[in-house]
Amino acid sequence: MQETGKKLLWNTSSLFTNKRFVAGGATTPFADVFAYAGAQIKHSLEIAKRLGSESYVFWGGREGYESLLNTDTKRELDHIAAFFQLAVDYAKEIGYTGQFLLEPKPKEPTSHQYDTDAQTTIAFLKTYGLENDFKLNLEGNHAFLAGHTYEHEVRFTREAGLLGSLDANMGDKLIGWDIDEFPNDIYEATLVMYEFLKNGGLPTGGLNFDAKVRRQSFEAEDLFYGHMAGMDVYAAGLRVAAKILEDGYFEDVLKDRYSSFDSGIGADFEAGKVTFADLENYIIDTPDADVIAATKSGHLEAIKATLNNYIYSVLGARFN
Amino acid sequence: MQETGKKLLWNTSSLFTNKRFVAGGATTPFADVFAYAGAQIKHSLEIAKRLGSESYVFWGGREGYESLLNTDTKRELDHIAAFFQLAVDYAKEIGYTGQFLLEPKPKEPTSHQYDTDAQTTIAFLKTYGLENDFKLNLEGNHAFLAGHTYEHEVRFTREAGLLGSLDANMGDKLIGWDIDEFPNDIYEATLVMYEFLKNGGLPTGGLNFDAKVRRQSFEAEDLFYGHMAGMDVYAAGLRVAAKILEDGYFEDVLKDRYSSFDSGIGADFEAGKVTFADLENYIIDTPDADVIAATKSGHLEAIKATLNNYIYSVLGARFN
Amino acid sequence: MQETGKKLLWNTSSLFTNKRFVAGGATTPFADVFAYAGAQIKHSLEIAKRLGSESYVFWGGREGYESLLNTDTKRELDHIAAFFQLAVDYAKEIGYTGQFLLEPKPKEPTSHQYDTDAQTTIAFLKTYGLENDFKLNLEGNHAFLAGHTYEHEVRFTREAGLLGSLDANMGDKLIGWDIDEFPNDIYEATLVMYEFLKNGGLPTGGLNFDAKVRRQSFEAEDLFYGHMAGMDVYAAGLRVAAKILEDGYFEDVLKDRYSSFDSGIGADFEAGKVTFADLENYIIDTPDADVIAATKSGHLEAIKATLNNYIYSVLGARFN
Amino acid sequence: MQETGKKLLWNTSSLFTNKRFVAGGATTPFADVFAYAGAQIKHSLEIAKRLGSESYVFWGGREGYESLLNTDTKRELDHIAAFFQLAVDYAKEIGYTGQFLLEPKPKEPTSHQYDTDAQTTIAFLKTYGLENDFKLNLEGNHAFLAGHTYEHEVRFTREAGLLGSLDANMGDKLIGWDIDEFPNDIYEATLVMYEFLKNGGLPTGGLNFDAKVRRQSFEAEDLFYGHMAGMDVYAAGLRVAAKILEDGYFEDVLKDRYSSFDSGIGADFEAGKVTFADLENYIIDTPDADVIAATKSGHLEAIKATLNNYIYSVLGARFN
Repeated sequence: MQETGKKLLWNTSSLFTNKRFVAGGATTPFADVFAYAGAQIKHSLEIAKRLGSESYVFWGGREGYESLLNTDTKRELDHIAAFFQLAVDYAKEIGYTGQFLLEPKPKEPTSHQYDTDAQTTIAFLKTYGLENDFKLNLEGNHAFLAGHTYEHEVRFTREAGLLGSLDANMGDKLIGWDIDEFPNDIYEATLVMYEFLKNGGLPTGGLNFDAKVRRQSFEAEDLFYGHMAGMDVYAAGLRVAAKILEDGYFEDVLKDRYSSFDSGIGADFEAGKVTFADLENYIIDTPDADVIAATKSGHLEAIKATLNNYIYSVLGARFN
Repeated sequence: MQETGKKLLWNTSSLFTNKRFVAGGATTPFADVFAYAGAQIKHSLEIAKRLGSESYVFWGGREGYESLLNTDTKRELDHIAAFFQLAVDYAKEIGYTGQFLLEPKPKEPTSHQYDTDAQTTIAFLKTYGLENDFKLNLEGNHAFLAGHTYEHEVRFTREAGLLGSLDANMGDKLIGWDIDEFPNDIYEATLVMYEFLKNGGLPTGGLNFDAKVRRQSFEAEDLFYGHMAGMDVYAAGLRVAAKILEDGYFEDVLKDRYSSFDSGIGADFEAGKVTFADLENYIIDTPDADVIAATKSGHLEAIKATLNNYIYSVLGARFN
Repeated sequence: MQETGKKLLWNTSSLFTNKRFVAGGATTPFADVFAYAGAQIKHSLEIAKRLGSESYVFWGGREGYESLLNTDTKRELDHIAAFFQLAVDYAKEIGYTGQFLLEPKPKEPTSHQYDTDAQTTIAFLKTYGLENDFKLNLEGNHAFLAGHTYEHEVRFTREAGLLGSLDANMGDKLIGWDIDEFPNDIYEATLVMYEFLKNGGLPTGGLNFDAKVRRQSFEAEDLFYGHMAGMDVYAAGLRVAAKILEDGYFEDVLKDRYSSFDSGIGADFEAGKVTFADLENYIIDTPDADVIAATKSGHLEAIKATLNNYIYSVLGARFN
Repeated sequence: MQETGKKLLWNTSSLFTNKRFVAGGATTPFADVFAYAGAQIKHSLEIAKRLGSESYVFWGGREGYESLLNTDTKRELDHIAAFFQLAVDYAKEIGYTGQFLLEPKPKEPTSHQYDTDAQTTIAFLKTYGLENDFKLNLEGNHAFLAGHTYEHEVRFTREAGLLGSLDANMGDKLIGWDIDEFPNDIYEATLVMYEFLKNGGLPTGGLNFDAKVRRQSFEAEDLFYGHMAGMDVYAAGLRVAAKILEDGYFEDVLKDRYSSFDSGIGADFEAGKVTFADLENYIIDTPDADVIAATKSGHLEAIKATLNNYIYSVLGARFN
């Protein structure tokens, strides 16, 4: 349970620690365990309602496979989808109106978890017709384990209209497991907060530290420093992102880059007015050199340097 | 173009080599390039019809992003989805009935490609309503680059009903780029062929060597050895898989493991007859020890040893 | 402690679990903890002597850094080298004649461990003059975490004359942590056993299961199956490797491939009789085409197919 | 060739592009190719002398193995070590006094390159007695491919006294090949420049852009922006590092953290005055709680927050 101001950010329930869930909760091969999981979530939803939690998150740490050789993946996915539908049904029945969330993670503790990454989880929701009842709770290190940046996961989830909540912790791309470090990377914080702002904030959910101090940081003050530094870097990232958005910098980059789709053949295509034959007619007399000349540089070197300058200038102002 | 017996396995067209496609073909930010891509695919589909190719594959080597900072990912995805719809429309118009295929690959040459892996590609198809017109062409090394085994990609695609064709080459999980080695891993060949058999073969498509001999294998005979060895290991894998299927070995493992869902509360759940309240009522008086006792071992050690014995016995028979 | 027949394979002592070792044992920044570690190893060496263990292994799970920012890497390496020298000195003093072993692993539990991989550990031994007193104990999954195959680690350690002992467990190259699975990969077992045979076996040390059954394999019989299957695959690998060695197959490949160094300018070079000027004189009138013609294919496709055939034929004989 | 002011930074010679070097230059299995490589380096050293280049770098892109199965790794390593000795001898003969450098990279283009990372390369140098004639040229993305940070490679090379030169380009830890991006990561630039300052700069060698603009940055101005941004981030990193060093911040962290080795039993140990028995005597009556109390937090959260503040404050000053 995570409290935020007077509100409770989210509830969850562990279907992964107790040994009955050795092979999963909603994807267990064992009907009695499945029944237990259902009863447990029923109770947990009742608690969520009583506490008025804003959202209810499922992290499927054991919902996956140890090996494909002894796993009926299709049957398990059918089970967990139906299980989630039962949760939705029960929430309606008791009048719990919190937002349901899935939290993608590709592996650890299990070799493979079904909610691998944002887009795989979206595929699951769309396959089973659950996309109107669930959103996603994202975490940076989970993104790394799936081979993505955190901002990638947030971007694609936002654009799918499914951004629910964010875990404000950090990973290490050179380490193959989830380290849940308090965040301190100003680049990641800025880019994630930029997506947050583009999303209009988080209607439900929020920023949650699912982080822990390093093993060697065992003194009481470390816990304070970890939280302060973590909040600070996300606040700093928010300020940089807000300035970039206020200036319309990234938006102008995109507007300029895609401008050929704002009129002429590009706009006609976007309006659904062209066929392949129209495209052929349009381009057929255009010399190849002209087509190539229509391409423009992405100017990534200048854009990244500008991002650095935003960071230095916005955050340097603190010290002057 | 890949020929198979008297049939042509598939056609494709490169929207990734020419410098006009530096920022993509269907996802280029430049409308003239987009028009060129459309015209090119139009022609390519006409050729596919003329040649009677069984399937038509899109590999989106430049359809992705070099950086999120200068990419309008949503607009690009909308574009490529509409582009694919134009391809479907044009195929219908000219009466080309080959199967359209997408070939997932997460990166290389581009930092991130939209068709990241099987499930991400399935999410894309479902999001844009293209899942009835497209299937997937899978490749082992592409799976590795996305953090999956080849058999994982084939399994999930098969179970989604979207298995179209297979590239019979091999990767190296310790190398971070696509090596397109001729296959020689009997484990991978067996497990992929098992999925192939469970799929009832490949109605369209087939097994395609998109492989090349190693750089140091530059003599003429190496090309023969590469093809012979590659065909041999897939033929060997097919024989092992066929024997396993004939014996019902893996099927029995699953049948036994999930049997508690074949009757009682499990079967009621699968039939859509239970609610969370029913699950609670069922389990409420069951002692915790009994729930745990309902779990059974996955016996993975014995299963993997059995797989080894299948390989040794089926393939050793050649030498006796 | 690992028993083997009447002999004790090896002893060790944990400088990584107790919280006093939070920042290492021999590389701890805290002198009292260091003293404790020294006293603990002193006792452990006395036990090793009493039990007559063949070797004494150090695995440095906490000997590394959580972050470079707060670690004096040079001072810590100086400390652990001196610590190992104290161990050597004390062993001599009490007459313990077992072989000291270091066990490389690049990370987990710590972000970075000094004994990263075989060659890094060899660099350490040579830098501090410990190479005559220590050998290496290697483990497959540790190799994977360092980006290597198991056979790579065994090969380079063998050729450095430092192969001490082997852990017969297996990893998963797609998983970023140590899974310690009982081995079942016949390719890895064959290639590791080939190195074992080339090494003349292991004068001290042996094959050790530092493996555990999978989490879902929780029944008593799984432990038996795990051990049986693990022993079987290494026995199988040994038989395949022995046959390859008996046939001189790999040796012939190498002999043929490097034959140009067995006579002429190649042999003169190997005998230390040539300078760059001699090489220039030798090659100066050789047409470029002739130099290129001197290269020969590595025939890797045929070699890998032959390896498969060795596996099928040697192991298939069991079933006939 | 890289020019720096009036000096030439370094020379090199390609033993990896021409097809004669398909299996390596100094590690080729073919004596004629080896002779050619020797003659080529002879000429290249003569040029280096004539141009007065400060250093001479070997990057062994083909010096490694495509597969262990057909590679005599020991013989190849013996060859390349002797080859390097011939280069040293010839340089002395002609009076070329530039610094020889090896550039570690673990893979790409070859599956495995012998100069895997800094410490492996140091092991090689020490094994063959070349450590007085060679130093290292390091590159960030090569570090990533070996599973390390750039600052890790620079730190360990500096502490081994073998830091020769630095490539100022950047990688992407989520991409498995060398991307040679112009640098823009202020964290990496700061930490690498900190090591640079601790090294007293680079007596030979320097900072070299072995970088290229992104594929989509194809306009002339991008080349300027890439160089400007790259130089800027390293200049910025140098200023942050200089301020940290001037304040003695990291040094104070270490001084405090390891202070128990500056007196008492710790200092006696460092002075070589203690045995395991002394350590036992020292600690034997110390309660366990006291040993644990001797450990101090690593305070990593606070340290990383402080690093952020150094970056913001030093670099923000530009904008005020």
